[in-house]
Amino acid sequence: MLRVASKLSTKIKAHMSCLNNYSHLISSKTIGVANIHGLVSCRANYVPLSPISFLERSAVVYRHTTSIIYGSEKYTWGQSYERCTKLASSLFQLGISYGDVVAALIPNIPAMYELHFAVPMAGGILCTLNIRHDSTMISVLLKHSGSKLIFVDTQFFDVAYKAIDIMSKTTSKLPQIVLVVDKQSIDLKYQIPSSVTLQYEVLVQNGKSDFEIRRPKDELQPISLNYTSGTTSRPKGVVYNHRGAYLNSLATVMLHEVGPMAVYLWTVPMFHCNGWCLIWGVAAQGGTNVCVRNVTADGIFRKIVEHRVTHMGGAPTVLNMIINARDDEKKRLPGKVSVMTGGSPPPPKVLSKMEDMGFAVIHIYGLTETYGPATLCAWKPEWDALPPNERAKIKARQGVNHIGMEEVDVKHPVTLESVPSDGKTIGEVMFRGNTVMSGYMNDTKATEDAFRGGWFHSGDLGVKHSDGYIEVKDRAKDIIISGGENICSIEVESVIFTHPAVLDVAVVGRPDDHWGETPCAFIELKDGHDDVTSVDMIEFCKDRLPHYMAPRTVVFQGLPKTSTGKTQKFILREKAKAMGSLTRSNDRKE
Amino acid sequence: MLRVASKLSTKIKAHMSCLNNYSHLISSKTIGVANIHGLVSCRANYVPLSPISFLERSAVVYRHTTSIIYGSEKYTWGQSYERCTKLASSLFQLGISYGDVVAALIPNIPAMYELHFAVPMAGGILCTLNIRHDSTMISVLLKHSGSKLIFVDTQFFDVAYKAIDIMSKTTSKLPQIVLVVDKQSIDLKYQIPSSVTLQYEVLVQNGKSDFEIRRPKDELQPISLNYTSGTTSRPKGVVYNHRGAYLNSLATVMLHEVGPMAVYLWTVPMFHCNGWCLIWGVAAQGGTNVCVRNVTADGIFRKIVEHRVTHMGGAPTVLNMIINARDDEKKRLPGKVSVMTGGSPPPPKVLSKMEDMGFAVIHIYGLTETYGPATLCAWKPEWDALPPNERAKIKARQGVNHIGMEEVDVKHPVTLESVPSDGKTIGEVMFRGNTVMSGYMNDTKATEDAFRGGWFHSGDLGVKHSDGYIEVKDRAKDIIISGGENICSIEVESVIFTHPAVLDVAVVGRPDDHWGETPCAFIELKDGHDDVTSVDMIEFCKDRLPHYMAPRTVVFQGLPKTSTGKTQKFILREKAKAMGSLTRSNDRKE
Repeated sequence: MLRVASKLSTKIKAHMSCLNNYSHLISSKTIGVANIHGLVSCRANYVPLSPISFLERSAVVYRHTTSIIYGSEKYTWGQSYERCTKLASSLFQLGISYGDVVAALIPNIPAMYELHFAVPMAGGILCTLNIRHDSTMISVLLKHSGSKLIFVDTQFFDVAYKAIDIMSKTTSKLPQIVLVVDKQSIDLKYQIPSSVTLQYEVLVQNGKSDFEIRRPKDELQPISLNYTSGTTSRPKGVVYNHRGAYLNSLATVMLHEVGPMAVYLWTVPMFHCNGWCLIWGVAAQGGTNVCVRNVTADGIFRKIVEHRVTHMGGAPTVLNMIINARDDEKKRLPGKVSVMTGGSPPPPKVLSKMEDMGFAVIHIYGLTETYGPATLCAWKPEWDALPPNERAKIKARQGVNHIGMEEVDVKHPVTLESVPSDGKTIGEVMFRGNTVMSGYMNDTKATEDAFRGGWFHSGDLGVKHSDGYIEVKDRAKDIIISGGENICSIEVESVIFTHPAVLDVAVVGRPDDHWGETPCAFIELKDGHDDVTSVDMIEFCKDRLPHYMAPRTVVFQGLPKTSTGKTQKFILREKAKAMGSLTRSNDRKE
Repeated sequence: MLRVASKLSTKIKAHMSCLNNYSHLISSKTIGVANIHGLVSCRANYVPLSPISFLERSAVVYRHTTSIIYGSEKYTWGQSYERCTKLASSLFQLGISYGDVVAALIPNIPAMYELHFAVPMAGGILCTLNIRHDSTMISVLLKHSGSKLIFVDTQFFDVAYKAIDIMSKTTSKLPQIVLVVDKQSIDLKYQIPSSVTLQYEVLVQNGKSDFEIRRPKDELQPISLNYTSGTTSRPKGVVYNHRGAYLNSLATVMLHEVGPMAVYLWTVPMFHCNGWCLIWGVAAQGGTNVCVRNVTADGIFRKIVEHRVTHMGGAPTVLNMIINARDDEKKRLPGKVSVMTGGSPPPPKVLSKMEDMGFAVIHIYGLTETYGPATLCAWKPEWDALPPNERAKIKARQGVNHIGMEEVDVKHPVTLESVPSDGKTIGEVMFRGNTVMSGYMNDTKATEDAFRGGWFHSGDLGVKHSDGYIEVKDRAKDIIISGGENICSIEVESVIFTHPAVLDVAVVGRPDDHWGETPCAFIELKDGHDDVTSVDMIEFCKDRLPHYMAPRTVVFQGLPKTSTGKTQKFILREKAKAMGSLTRSNDRKE
C-alpha cells in the first residue's frame, strides 16, 4: 500500500523532531499590537487578492467541467486555464507588463472571456470597449487609455482600423491590432486584412503553458479599465483593482446565488463592468459560460433549453425582449432561471410579467464606478404573500448594499448628512467600500470630486425607506422641475408602462417659459396599437398621478438606446428642447 | 409626492455644476503604475476587511429576522447588533482596547455568539477556551494570553475561579471575571458567588447603543486567539486576523452553501476555531443560529424538526451520535439538512449511513491554524452514479482548497517538492493563503518553523490523487511503522468500522522488539455485541487487509475523546506502550 514512501516517512519523522529555522523567509513586517509578538505576514499567510486565483483553483477543482460553450466551440476549465496562460505568455512576449493597457473590441465570445484572465495574468490592464462605439470614439479612448494592443473581432475590424487611422494624425504611439477571427461567424470568403500581422488564436497556440503568471504585487494594482458613458470631450476611465474585482465577484456570486457548476448565459455585455464582475465570478464557482454573439429573444429561449441555463442577467431591455417574445419563440423553462437585472430601474409591470413566465428576478443596482452590482433588493419571505403588483413595486427598489460593499446611503450632497428614512426626502445615493473604483484614469480632479467627504457620489437621486432600503428616483440630471415641484421621470414612466399598448417609454423635461419645465413622454407602442392618441395617454396619466406630474407632451417613436440597453435620454432631451416652450408666460393655461 | 425635498433638489443641481475640491480628504497613498495617475486609496474605496461588517449589514438587511434562538430566548439581527454594540461599549468602559485579550469559557449559548462580535467591536481579541479544560490548563492559558477579562458561564465558574487562584501564586496580573448567568440552565436556588462583581447581562444593558465601533485600523490586526491541543508546558496560541476571518467566513459559507436566512444548528463547539468561522459566516447571510448547551442525539433531532434546521456541522463523533440514535430519538427530517463534517476523516461507513438517513454530508478538512475549514471534498456529478460505498470512500478524501485558501499541496517536508499525483507517495500536507493564521502568539520560533519555505506545515501526512484531490493518511505521529512498512492507522480503522458490532475504533502502534511496532486496535462495541472476540476482529481484518496491516492486539473499551470529538490517541498510545512488546527478537511468530 504505502511501501513506495517508506523511506520518505522515516525522513519526515526525523524532520519533525528537528525543526529548522527559516526565519529569513519571513517578512519583517509585523502586525498586531504592542503586547503581542510572533505574528508575521509572509508568503504562507498573505496573498494579494485577485480573480486570477479563481481560474487557478477551477483548473484543479473543476478540471473536466465545461467552462465555455459557444456554438460548436467548447472548453473545460483545465483547457481554459491553459489557453489563458499561453495567451498571457504571448502578451508578455509582445512586451505587455505591469500597468500596460490592452484594449478589446469584441462581443460576448470566448476570446473576450479569456482576455479577462490572460491580460491580468501578464500583469496588464484590460480595457473593454463598447462595441457600439464609432471610430472617432474608439480613437479617443485608445489614446486616453494609452492602449498598447487592441484585440478586435472581425466584425469591428473596420471601426478599429479607422480609429487608429484617426489617431495617426495626432500621435505616433499607435496600438497594434490583434485580430480575433471567430470562425463560426465569418463568411466563408473572409480574407484576413493584409494589414493584420497578429491573430488571437496564433497567440494562444504559440504561448507557453509553463509561463509564470505575473500576479499583482499589490492587490490595489489595476486590473481593468471601463469607460463610462461616452462623450468624446472628456472620457472617464474607471479603474478597477484586483482586490475590488475579487470581492465584487464573490459578492455578486453570493447575491445571485451562483452555485458550483451553475450555467450562465451571457446576455449581459462582457464589456460592461467586466460583465458585472461575473466573468470572474462564474470562474470562481466553476460554472459554465454560454456565450452568444447577439442577444435575441429566440436565442435566449433556445440556449436556456439547450444548455439548461440556470442564471443570466440583463438590463430591463433584455427583460422586455423576453416578455415580448413571439409565441413561437417562447419555450417552457427546463428549470429555475435566475435573472439579475439592473442598469435602470425595472418597471413593476416588466417584473411581474417575468415572474409569470417562471423567471426569478433579482434586482440589483450599481454604477460602473462600483464594479457594477453594489446593492440588491434583498427579498424577504413576508413579501411573498403580497399581490403580484405590490411585490413588483417592492422589487423595483434598489435595496441594500451587497456583502462586498461597506455602506450605501442617501445623503445631502453637500453636508453629507443622511436623509431621514421616510421614503420621501430626496438626497444623493452614495457608496463607501472596497468595491468602489480606484479612481478615474489620469483625472485626479474628477476622482477627488467623486470621493469628496470620503463617499463616492453616484449622481443618482433617491430616498431611503423606513426599512433601510433605498430607492433611486432619478439621475440628478433627469429630474424634471415643473412649477417648483420635482417630478421623478421614473415615476411617470412606471405609470405609462402599465398601459397595455406601451412597449417602452422615457420621460424628459421640455423647457417651458411659464413652468420652467413640463414632462414630455416619448412612447414606443406595441405592434397593432397605433390607434392610441396623445390625449388618451395624458388622460391615462392624470387618472393615476397628481396632474402636475402628467405629461403635457406625448411623442410616439422608437427610443434611442445605448448598447447596454439604457435609453439615451440626452438625445430625447435635445429633441424636447428643440420643440420650444409649450406655454408662454402670458399664455397660462391653468 | 416629492414636495418635501424640492429645495434640496435645487441645491443639488447647483452643486452638481460646481464641484468642490476636497482633495485633503484623499489619502496620499497612490497605487498603480508609472503611466497612470488619478488613483487613490481613501475612506470611500478602502475598508479593512472585518467580520464586524457582516453584523452591521445584517442589522439593516435582516433587521427583523431571527438571529439567535436558545430555548425561550430569541433575538433579531437588529437586536443582536444593538446588544453587541452595547457590550462593546461596556468593554471599552472596562478598559478593553486595541490588542487586549478577552477570554471566554462558555458553551454554545447566545453570550458566546455575541462576544465574537462585541470583543472585536471594542478593538479586543477574543480568546475562546475549551470548556473541557481543567483549572490548571485554564490558568496556563489565561497567563499565556495575558487576558484582562474572562467571561465565564455559571457551569464553569468554579473551574475559572480556581484557575485564577492558581495564577495568583505566581503573578499579580489577574483577569477579572464576568459571570454569564444563563437563566435557562441554572438552578432556582442558584446564588451569584460573592466574589463576582461583573455580570454579562448587566454589561449589555448598561452599554451605550451609540458607541462608536472600534474597527480594526489594519485588516491584519488580530481578532481572535485559539489554543491548539493542550499541553501545559508550551501552549500554542493561534492568532487569527480580521482579514482572514472575513475571507474564511465567506469561503465557508460558500462551500457549505449557507444561503440567506439559513437555519444553523450549533453542534460544532463555538470555542473551536470560532465555530469553524461560521459564527461570523451565519451573520454574513442573516441566518438563524440555534444554540444548544449540550449536544445529544435526541436534542439534535428535536431542534432540527422544531426550527427546520438547514445546516449543521460536527466531528465524525457527532455523525456517529446521529446514526446510532435510538429509534425513539430519531425523527424524519423536515427538509434537506446539510452537515459539514471535519476534525478527523469520517469513516466511509458513517458517511453512507448519514446519507441513508437523508443528511447531505460535506467533508471538510483544516486545522486550527487554517481558521478551521481549508479544504473540501468538492463533489462531482459523475460520482452520483457510484455504489454508496464507493461514494463514501471518495467523500472521505480531504479534497481541494476552498475559495479562500490559495493553495493546498502535499510536499516533501524538507525539500518542499510536490509529491507526484499518484495517490501513493506520502508527503506533508501544506497550505498557503490568506486563511492561514498570523502566527503563534508570543512564539516567534514556532511561527517561523510552521511557515518555513513560505508554506504552512500542517504535520499531517497525505497523498495527492490523479484528480488533484488530497487525502490525509495520518498525523505524522499516528503512522505505525511495522517491519519497515508504513501503516496508516486510518486505513485499518476504516476496515474495522465496517464490522457490524463496532461503534468506534482507534488504532495505534504497540512497541515491538522485533517489528518495531505492531498495530493495536482499541474498539468500542455496540450494546449487545459483547460476544465478539479479539480473534474474530483480527481474522476480520486479515480477510480485508494485507496481513501486516491487521492488528496484533485488540482491546475492547470506550475511547477517550477531546471535547471536539477527536479520539485522544496519545492516551491509547501510552496504554499500548505500557503493554510492552508482543514478540521478542528471538520469539518471531512469522
